[in-house]
Amino acid sequence: MVVSLGPRFLAIDWGTTNRRVYLIEDGAVARTERDDRGVTAVAKGGFEAEAAAVRERFGDLPMLLAGMVGSNIGWRAAPYVAAPAGFGALAEAVLWLDPRTGIVPGLSVVADGRGDVMRGEEVQLLGAVAAGLAPADALLCQPGTHCKWAEMAGGEVACFTTAMTGELFALLRKHGLLAAQLGGEVTPGDAFLAGVEEGKRRDLAASLFGIRAAGLLGLRDDADAAAFASGLLIGGDVGARLAGSAHDTVHILADPGLGGLYALAVEAHGRAARLVDSHAAFAAGIIRIGELIA
Amino acid sequence: MVVSLGPRFLAIDWGTTNRRVYLIEDGAVARTERDDRGVTAVAKGGFEAEAAAVRERFGDLPMLLAGMVGSNIGWRAAPYVAAPAGFGALAEAVLWLDPRTGIVPGLSVVADGRGDVMRGEEVQLLGAVAAGLAPADALLCQPGTHCKWAEMAGGEVACFTTAMTGELFALLRKHGLLAAQLGGEVTPGDAFLAGVEEGKRRDLAASLFGIRAAGLLGLRDDADAAAFASGLLIGGDVGARLAGSAHDTVHILADPGLGGLYALAVEAHGRAARLVDSHAAFAAGIIRIGELIA
Repeated sequence: MVVSLGPRFLAIDWGTTNRRVYLIEDGAVARTERDDRGVTAVAKGGFEAEAAAVRERFGDLPMLLAGMVGSNIGWRAAPYVAAPAGFGALAEAVLWLDPRTGIVPGLSVVADGRGDVMRGEEVQLLGAVAAGLAPADALLCQPGTHCKWAEMAGGEVACFTTAMTGELFALLRKHGLLAAQLGGEVTPGDAFLAGVEEGKRRDLAASLFGIRAAGLLGLRDDADAAAFASGLLIGGDVGARLAGSAHDTVHILADPGLGGLYALAVEAHGRAARLVDSHAAFAAGIIRIGELIA
Repeated sequence: MVVSLGPRFLAIDWGTTNRRVYLIEDGAVARTERDDRGVTAVAKGGFEAEAAAVRERFGDLPMLLAGMVGSNIGWRAAPYVAAPAGFGALAEAVLWLDPRTGIVPGLSVVADGRGDVMRGEEVQLLGAVAAGLAPADALLCQPGTHCKWAEMAGGEVACFTTAMTGELFALLRKHGLLAAQLGGEVTPGDAFLAGVEEGKRRDLAASLFGIRAAGLLGLRDDADAAAFASGLLIGGDVGARLAGSAHDTVHILADPGLGGLYALAVEAHGRAARLVDSHAAFAAGIIRIGELIA
């Protein structure tokens, strides 16, 4: 399919629960809008109408989509490109639904029989380097429900690991033994840091029961339990990843709230943390892919 | 309160979801019966009537209760006795609801600011040694929703650790990203052992996402995902506990199904496993406590 985006196009970072639309004009973001029309909010067969509605609001332009919209719960399943991969491999493998609507592929990695996948994060990761927000050789972290950690080498995604850190926290907060204790706020204070320390034991199932025991024995105020649990989970994630990486700095693509918690945990492990604007990274990445297609 | 049980009494191992009644006569089990009238099946204020119904079926005898019946979701909260502790400390601290009805206390342990608790398992642990089913100095394991690991020293419970292994598996099987993959049977085969190997990484949040990725990338049949996840969780639990113990044998108090899975994981970590009859252990323990009271 011969396609060309031209200097004006729409980019959508279309995730599971949220969506952000960018109007790109001459290599810059002219307008952006976030809403909650993520993939799970769109009925099967409803994506054409969603795309048409976006074009009505932003202009009848070509469109480049990234994220879970390209999964089997999205519009259509785009392939995974095997890492190591850079912009060229992504641009080549864009799945064109029609000559004006393309989905950026995800990335996969398989090593020693163990596999991993991502969708949408690859645009941010490559974009962060392209925009000069992170070095070409670096360890990048994208906290969230499924936290992504990527080793960038020569500006490409060399390999990556996903941890279900955020999902585990959400599950424990909603269901099971600890739910009643974990209603408190998560703040970047002493309880969080105590959890990070406990996470260094790498013994999650036992450390979690310790939260229950601490409540029963009066060893910790239950108001601090959620912050401790968050520190335990984030700390365990950070510790496992840093044990396998020689980089002295972690570049964190996240909002200041969650990004700040990860930064604290990184510092508690003796490395430096730098927050990176993930929206700027996405925009830089999708603009570069657009240039390669145009 | 001056009490005496005499040679005939009723013992109830009264847990969260199940209950087992033992009629003890002259230091032996004369009759036993299991039902699902666990603590959560009994309405607040309903325990007197439950005990009366048991006495109607088994005889109007003194009663010794152990387990979650002595928690704040049970009949009445019995105290925790601090480990190290043996039969003497338990017998002394029995909570008498009336001169014919006592609740055996639980155990607690606090070390380096980290705490743990148990209720009901202490009777089994001490009973296993008293009955000669385990040595006086040994590592004992009680698999389950909240898996207990106890270091026995001189026949007492020296210290112990609880891991939420079974609860995590149940949460993941019912809720969240992996639920759709984890419906398969857990058998003690290759997939389970592959999970045990993965568990040695002590990186649970990442290994769990790996189950998702393996499904998406076709690296493992989803029919094997539940066995792999079970191996991952049990293997992680076993590995963490063995790392802190010099014992070359683990004595496992469990039914052959779950006990067999733990035994496989123990052997995969290069130690020996021996299954112990947990009902015989409970009976021996409660009989010994009865003797100390009588």
